[in-house]
Amino acid sequence: MVVFLDKRITDQQLEAIKEAAKSMGLEARLVSGSHENILALIGDERGKELRSLEALPGVRKVMPVEKQYKIVSRDGNQRYNHYDTKIVNVSGVKFGAKKPVMIAGPCAVESLEQVTELACALRELGVDILRGGAYKPRTSPYDFQGLGEAGLKMLKRASEKSGLPIVTEVLDTAAVEQVAAYADMLQIGTRNMWNYALLSAVGKTRKPILLKRGLIATMTEWLCAAEYIAIEGNSEIVLCARGVRTGVTGEYGRNHADWDVIFPLQKETYLPVIADPSHCGGLAERVPSLALSALACGAQGLIIETIRENAKPEEVKCDYKQGLRPSQLRTLLKKCADIRFADMRSRDVRASYEEK
Amino acid sequence: MVVFLDKRITDQQLEAIKEAAKSMGLEARLVSGSHENILALIGDERGKELRSLEALPGVRKVMPVEKQYKIVSRDGNQRYNHYDTKIVNVSGVKFGAKKPVMIAGPCAVESLEQVTELACALRELGVDILRGGAYKPRTSPYDFQGLGEAGLKMLKRASEKSGLPIVTEVLDTAAVEQVAAYADMLQIGTRNMWNYALLSAVGKTRKPILLKRGLIATMTEWLCAAEYIAIEGNSEIVLCARGVRTGVTGEYGRNHADWDVIFPLQKETYLPVIADPSHCGGLAERVPSLALSALACGAQGLIIETIRENAKPEEVKCDYKQGLRPSQLRTLLKKCADIRFADMRSRDVRASYEEK
Amino acid sequence: MVVFLDKRITDQQLEAIKEAAKSMGLEARLVSGSHENILALIGDERGKELRSLEALPGVRKVMPVEKQYKIVSRDGNQRYNHYDTKIVNVSGVKFGAKKPVMIAGPCAVESLEQVTELACALRELGVDILRGGAYKPRTSPYDFQGLGEAGLKMLKRASEKSGLPIVTEVLDTAAVEQVAAYADMLQIGTRNMWNYALLSAVGKTRKPILLKRGLIATMTEWLCAAEYIAIEGNSEIVLCARGVRTGVTGEYGRNHADWDVIFPLQKETYLPVIADPSHCGGLAERVPSLALSALACGAQGLIIETIRENAKPEEVKCDYKQGLRPSQLRTLLKKCADIRFADMRSRDVRASYEEK
Amino acid sequence: MVVFLDKRITDQQLEAIKEAAKSMGLEARLVSGSHENILALIGDERGKELRSLEALPGVRKVMPVEKQYKIVSRDGNQRYNHYDTKIVNVSGVKFGAKKPVMIAGPCAVESLEQVTELACALRELGVDILRGGAYKPRTSPYDFQGLGEAGLKMLKRASEKSGLPIVTEVLDTAAVEQVAAYADMLQIGTRNMWNYALLSAVGKTRKPILLKRGLIATMTEWLCAAEYIAIEGNSEIVLCARGVRTGVTGEYGRNHADWDVIFPLQKETYLPVIADPSHCGGLAERVPSLALSALACGAQGLIIETIRENAKPEEVKCDYKQGLRPSQLRTLLKKCADIRFADMRSRDVRASYEEK
Repeated sequence: MVVFLDKRITDQQLEAIKEAAKSMGLEARLVSGSHENILALIGDERGKELRSLEALPGVRKVMPVEKQYKIVSRDGNQRYNHYDTKIVNVSGVKFGAKKPVMIAGPCAVESLEQVTELACALRELGVDILRGGAYKPRTSPYDFQGLGEAGLKMLKRASEKSGLPIVTEVLDTAAVEQVAAYADMLQIGTRNMWNYALLSAVGKTRKPILLKRGLIATMTEWLCAAEYIAIEGNSEIVLCARGVRTGVTGEYGRNHADWDVIFPLQKETYLPVIADPSHCGGLAERVPSLALSALACGAQGLIIETIRENAKPEEVKCDYKQGLRPSQLRTLLKKCADIRFADMRSRDVRASYEEK
Repeated sequence: MVVFLDKRITDQQLEAIKEAAKSMGLEARLVSGSHENILALIGDERGKELRSLEALPGVRKVMPVEKQYKIVSRDGNQRYNHYDTKIVNVSGVKFGAKKPVMIAGPCAVESLEQVTELACALRELGVDILRGGAYKPRTSPYDFQGLGEAGLKMLKRASEKSGLPIVTEVLDTAAVEQVAAYADMLQIGTRNMWNYALLSAVGKTRKPILLKRGLIATMTEWLCAAEYIAIEGNSEIVLCARGVRTGVTGEYGRNHADWDVIFPLQKETYLPVIADPSHCGGLAERVPSLALSALACGAQGLIIETIRENAKPEEVKCDYKQGLRPSQLRTLLKKCADIRFADMRSRDVRASYEEK
Repeated sequence: MVVFLDKRITDQQLEAIKEAAKSMGLEARLVSGSHENILALIGDERGKELRSLEALPGVRKVMPVEKQYKIVSRDGNQRYNHYDTKIVNVSGVKFGAKKPVMIAGPCAVESLEQVTELACALRELGVDILRGGAYKPRTSPYDFQGLGEAGLKMLKRASEKSGLPIVTEVLDTAAVEQVAAYADMLQIGTRNMWNYALLSAVGKTRKPILLKRGLIATMTEWLCAAEYIAIEGNSEIVLCARGVRTGVTGEYGRNHADWDVIFPLQKETYLPVIADPSHCGGLAERVPSLALSALACGAQGLIIETIRENAKPEEVKCDYKQGLRPSQLRTLLKKCADIRFADMRSRDVRASYEEK
Repeated sequence: MVVFLDKRITDQQLEAIKEAAKSMGLEARLVSGSHENILALIGDERGKELRSLEALPGVRKVMPVEKQYKIVSRDGNQRYNHYDTKIVNVSGVKFGAKKPVMIAGPCAVESLEQVTELACALRELGVDILRGGAYKPRTSPYDFQGLGEAGLKMLKRASEKSGLPIVTEVLDTAAVEQVAAYADMLQIGTRNMWNYALLSAVGKTRKPILLKRGLIATMTEWLCAAEYIAIEGNSEIVLCARGVRTGVTGEYGRNHADWDVIFPLQKETYLPVIADPSHCGGLAERVPSLALSALACGAQGLIIETIRENAKPEEVKCDYKQGLRPSQLRTLLKKCADIRFADMRSRDVRASYEEK
């Protein structure tokens, strides 16, 4: 840890800081510059409330050195080198392999017919995994909240019919077991990234987890959320960027795309990273360019909301306006294949950069 | 609902929009200006996915008119006039009455001795309610997570000894019953404002709820969260501003103070609103001015983290640096009383403004 | 304009609003729904302070309908259809044509040798335009502020030697004439997007303008800034996205990439839009993926900071850490050509989307 | 400076970092912990591009230690102790003294009658300084841009008649001399906080400067802007908080109030700090509580927009909706005096805090 000291610190204040550090089991070494001083504290930082020192007179700022996540960090896992991504296998579909994984499906499961028709259409387009919400977290309690277990059963039927594995969201620790009985992969949504009880609960299952970024989470907080899952013994985790809320959100999108996190994130962790362009754009016409740019940024897969080919606005209960129709998705997937052919994945970009 | 139309909309596109509106049970009336057109849609908006229309060609923007929260809105509850606040009674302490409610206590319950000593000291200072976390949501899984039920028991003992009612956080639906057995008031923390399962669960208890604002929640989302509780039959809700994360957070505070939400919020809802200056400032020396300014902005109470008079940084497991010592809190409470005497509460400010 | 009314508005309040609208030359039409009322105000909105009505009792919100920018809007210029981009010609280099324009060069001009060597190297790589700052806006007054006119002369020499046209920043109205005497294109930087005196001044020149987005500017404000230039008779404007400051800036980048603005921006305006990945990434290794994703999002060019092949950190006065070396840029440009080959430009993405 | 190193740094990489530091004139000292390493670089940091080192392999992060502003920092000026504020004298009105300075007046000067009538009314209420814009920076070029020199003359007449000194905004270096000929204090608005040419130009005058915070400026950037003025020999500077743009702006205000910066700012600098509640609230009814809370946070003055007692919305060209009428301002000023009586200024709050 590094402690930045006030210019006008007194000897007495400095002693008190050193004393507190010592009580924490850290050795303090003063490094004097010509203009400012810093105090380096040497020792094991883990599990200590190091920032407490910031309250002591004479301290300007405290900078812990150690990362708060270990299992999901490249540093902490020697099995993965500087570039390799962990392969997360969801019923045969491999996240982190060369080919980006394509997830698509309706925002919410609304009927057996809807989800089955869509699943079969998506299968034909080469989609890898079916998404669909049975439990829907909605801002307003008066909006459609999902069909619950009935929705899960419809998803399962659609999965059997189409052959596509299922990813679906779980909202509550009490429902983890139930959802896990139907799903191939459990989604933790944006609103629950900080729901540590839920993270621990899904960590105790043996299902792969799709962990979305919190609405304004830092990269560190996101990786700590993954760590909460991993610490329970389940490190089959795929991270999903989905935009954040910022000072420019709303004028021309639903969330501010955060594809710029992908490259730094892949440097920190070996977990696969995918992107959700639908919840960034918020409008179908904006989805294709966001999808392509996510791949260009290194995303190892996409999750895209879709509606039936002839869906009408008054029929769809959730996110109609950002859903792509199968015909639109076909065009997009073709372009995605082109971009893949162009081999612009982050790993290769990085490798070619670093070889120079 | 109002639909803003593209300047170059075609007749065919306009017809399609009207058709969709009609299918939603809304009557469309075109209002033509000299330069731009709008379409007013008349009818009951509730439970409809109105924004779907934004995907139709020729639509620039859709503006729903109705509020998404009803029970907690002044509009929806004729018992409360333009100024009145609902009185929320927590074991005899009244939120929303003339005197601001003072909540104080440790970030986390760490020992029986710690919490009892603090509770008694706070009682002496005139504090109304004891706070203290038994279940702590921590960014890192390696940090202290609270003592759980053992902590609740210590809180209860401290409460009995000091005579102060208790507010404590609940993190998971599975723990609601347990926490409610000990606490006088249940806290929903920032990280769980979007945890709708938990909101519903505490709405089913008969305990008053302290509902903190989500990390970057809009006022609307916050009121919708309150609505999730109220819809279950429990409208004994106190809202708590605690700062949000923004583009200037971190350089000089932990969260960006959001006291400016208090006045508009009190216009929207009759629920009492309090403020948490500790989690904004992030450092004890910043707490007093934030506390006073919250009261000047109309806050009807404060929740302040405290540490024992002689607490040392290495001893406290959580938020040492933002905790006030009882002696510091005494000085602050005296100033709070002065500001109260100066009668600068928002209600009076508003009333005097509007009388002019 | 649309006025959203309070549910409990009185007849008297409604009359006062109508009266005020009438005095503004607008006709008021009440549209009554089953739950809420709105007032549509018909007439020419231009040059009127319409939001004044928001202060009247009974008004919840006012929504002007007309756009504040006209010349630079597709709506206001019939020469450009739904897709076409205006060609902005900078000494033979065409922005808005099929091939993305590549601008590269040092952050600051530091010596004749530096800028000439770089210019020739960049020319060889196929770069179209040379960038380089002679006047540098720096956060600290103690940092290198640029060489001023001496720097402009060096740029000119480098331009003559390499054959590349020059774009360089102008910071002050007093320097516009001088900078215009040397430069082929004038850059308005992020810090000056709201400097209306400067925008007017460059609007009076006949030089093409590169207009960067302000640090947290809305799309509307950015287009209004372009309008300030265009209204003076100069609509040879290229817009440049360069990231904005948000609640997640700093942890893994210098500015939060805003490529998601490109598609909606291109719907609003016919002006070409390019992107600056260097100021988003803030670190050379992050630049390539940001550059590629900008193209995938529809950027019609890139501006990239470069350093000399063997530049050492202690030698470069500005932005060393985000500068690409020519060899790194070569690799990137090859990938850019691939992505172009994949034909993923926004226009085509949009066209293919809309054809469905 | 402190360099945080990668856990897997090689000896060769470490040597290269040390070498680069040496070339910058800094001595490198490795501090090894049990888990992580840091490199402390000792020497004079000024004028060096220290962050360049972040581009070197093996570096995780670089933290400069020295502040980028010196003259305006308490550290750099031994005349001011831990609490004292510099007195900035504007034609007899003293910023930084015990009594908060009250500035009020119209957004824009619109007529001689308007500004004179208002000035006299404000004088009677005890206002200290008259504000009013002759040059108005407006988002849209079609909005009223101010009366220019004619407006300055009206201001001057109103000042003579009322006896109030004037503060007015200057937008362009070319107009500094002219505006300074009329004004007692020059305002640098939010949009120009990064306009370094303008900062230098007003720094060369002998007029006191009112420096508003940039739309999303950090505290450091703001103090650096003050330093640009001070370095020219003019340190008669008053800082003005006026809200910033964030992820929650717009729903219930114009800018997100930033009073939480006041306390930390006053720790960093001895310059007086005032607040502008009008541009935060954006609506007259929100201004009083924001004004009071600014004082409670330690603001040493307020600047408040006003309209004439009987002003109608259709008559006022700028910011009608956030203007207070004199009768409303009277009520507010009375409350301000009460809060002053309550002695809740930040300095005293801080002093009382630290005495404990």
